[in-house]
Amino acid sequence: MSTELKRGLEGVVVTESELSDIDGEAGRLIYRGYTIDELARQASYEETLYLLWHGELPNSRQLKVFSEQMAAARSLDEGVLKIVRDLAEADQEPMAALRTITSALAAYDPEADAEVTDEEANNRKSRRITAKMPTALAAYNQIRNGNEPIAPREDLSHAANFLYMLNGEEPDDVLAETFDMALVLHADHGLNASTFSAMVTASTLADLHSAVTSAIGTLSGSLHGGANANVMKMLKEIDDSEMDPVEWVVDALERGERVAGFGHRVYNVKDPRANILGEHSEALGEAAGDTKWYEMSLAIEEYIKAEKGLAPNVDFYSASTYYQMGIPIDLYTPIFAISRVGGWLAHVLEQWEDNRLIRPRAHYTGPEDVEYVPLDER
Amino acid sequence: MSTELKRGLEGVVVTESELSDIDGEAGRLIYRGYTIDELARQASYEETLYLLWHGELPNSRQLKVFSEQMAAARSLDEGVLKIVRDLAEADQEPMAALRTITSALAAYDPEADAEVTDEEANNRKSRRITAKMPTALAAYNQIRNGNEPIAPREDLSHAANFLYMLNGEEPDDVLAETFDMALVLHADHGLNASTFSAMVTASTLADLHSAVTSAIGTLSGSLHGGANANVMKMLKEIDDSEMDPVEWVVDALERGERVAGFGHRVYNVKDPRANILGEHSEALGEAAGDTKWYEMSLAIEEYIKAEKGLAPNVDFYSASTYYQMGIPIDLYTPIFAISRVGGWLAHVLEQWEDNRLIRPRAHYTGPEDVEYVPLDER
Repeated sequence: MSTELKRGLEGVVVTESELSDIDGEAGRLIYRGYTIDELARQASYEETLYLLWHGELPNSRQLKVFSEQMAAARSLDEGVLKIVRDLAEADQEPMAALRTITSALAAYDPEADAEVTDEEANNRKSRRITAKMPTALAAYNQIRNGNEPIAPREDLSHAANFLYMLNGEEPDDVLAETFDMALVLHADHGLNASTFSAMVTASTLADLHSAVTSAIGTLSGSLHGGANANVMKMLKEIDDSEMDPVEWVVDALERGERVAGFGHRVYNVKDPRANILGEHSEALGEAAGDTKWYEMSLAIEEYIKAEKGLAPNVDFYSASTYYQMGIPIDLYTPIFAISRVGGWLAHVLEQWEDNRLIRPRAHYTGPEDVEYVPLDER
Repeated sequence: MSTELKRGLEGVVVTESELSDIDGEAGRLIYRGYTIDELARQASYEETLYLLWHGELPNSRQLKVFSEQMAAARSLDEGVLKIVRDLAEADQEPMAALRTITSALAAYDPEADAEVTDEEANNRKSRRITAKMPTALAAYNQIRNGNEPIAPREDLSHAANFLYMLNGEEPDDVLAETFDMALVLHADHGLNASTFSAMVTASTLADLHSAVTSAIGTLSGSLHGGANANVMKMLKEIDDSEMDPVEWVVDALERGERVAGFGHRVYNVKDPRANILGEHSEALGEAAGDTKWYEMSLAIEEYIKAEKGLAPNVDFYSASTYYQMGIPIDLYTPIFAISRVGGWLAHVLEQWEDNRLIRPRAHYTGPEDVEYVPLDER
């Protein structure tokens, strides 16, 4: 047994996977052999889910069946809606609410008792979890704003339906396509921490709801999914300060602060997802006649690149994209979750084809042979 | 970067820890230098928690303050009780219910918004989570049986109070001490899968409620905490069959079935916890004038040892111990959780002293450079 310490498991290869691959030197991300560029520009989120879960892109008939199955699974049981209401009224913050609600979906899943290894049941459960999380998130947002939840519509795409439930009106094509692109972009990314936590949970043969619940909790951390909201908070702070963005960043760096949205353990060059999101951020600004958020982001990107040699990651341009779409800042991370759930489930289903318990070791550095002194003599 | 595949992370050392150490050859388990034998026989669960969380055994005054803090944190908010009621009425199975409820505790925690790295807040949150999980579990059990939840009492120990809430009457000393011993025995065990999942979640700086929720889900799997219930189901099946236990086991092995409660990735000899639990299983049988469950277990242990060279693990004797205490079989794994939560929290608090994101890699074995064919041409 090697006793070399592998802190953070950096560089440790824990499994084989056919799902996605990242070339950190070339700035390339593929899902099952397709570049993220092609998929984000051409495939819908439903097609991407099908690709991840079933190994290949669907043909028109397969996509129609799959999309209908997904759409039919969107609505929430009354019991789940009750919990959504309780949490929104208790002012629970959105990622924690989404974690609790997703965990609670298990109580109302018609196949909660199916064998963990029942492939067909797992496909149905995967669709239900992925279809219901956006409904729950939109309902939570409506309730905390004092409104009644808006029931999902089956005639809209996954992306368009979410925006419809969130805003109470059908999105135009630009909004729906931008959101769909964002869902595709975030759907999978190798063994990031949330995906890995889903795999650790599932490795004990715990069920899909447990695995996804773990992943949502993991994604909520500021070193993972929490970063996109932090980028937008920074951009707003810069805007409020009326300072030049680069000057603001120089000051922040001098105060020893980290600039959110830069650097990634896996990429050494610009994250390909940041390129695509940057284009959309610019396009949304141009359509609205005000490109300030994009320009501010670009100025910061150029400065940090020159000064620190760091490139923006996916969170950096998703921030201004979502902001210009009118999405509340504290929903950015939950939106990451409603996309990445596709990847979480894909990795778990892949792992169960040849499962192995994930159990590393710690090197014990505590005391040995301490004498036990009874309580009354301490 | 090594690309050697480390499936299941077997033998991979991911961190240093001062919390517990397992000598799988000698059959020895220590918490911070104290053998599990000494702790299980002499220390209470509260003392053990204090040891794990604060680095040393408390003196009488420290223990008094700590126990009072724990006892004062037992009761549940109305909002949590409502969710407990919903889940019990939806007939949600107990581990999934405990996962959802523990996640929901965050919504009612007065310090839910404290900085993740606020040590004092984390100590208080750790006490609240650990104090409230047993209350929630007992309330769930009362409600599913058609009863009202029994409010916790502050004048009883952690162990005795749980049995009081579960059964509606104060336990005698033997029951309370046996349960306390079981809680001490299960409190920590290196980087088992549930503890590791708590660490993966916390490594993104997700909060304690997220980490514990992940761990409960992970523990629920049949390859981890689910095993103790499976042992009891087997013993009951043997009893119902009226067969000789060894003959039953021989038949089961011939059918290609696994006998629950044997073998462990870390131990090559008998798990020291199984020894202690075996003694209690025997003592409970003797006190009740019927040692059949213990004798059945012992006969199976001897046969499997001779035939397969496998020794019983902690689950094997916790099954008959809990059964003779009158605990419902489907609460065995949740009881494991209300003990192990002490270890989960200890590992997360230790990790945050010098945190590092846990993000391994996968070796990509899928296709490369697949040509994207538009939907209408597929």
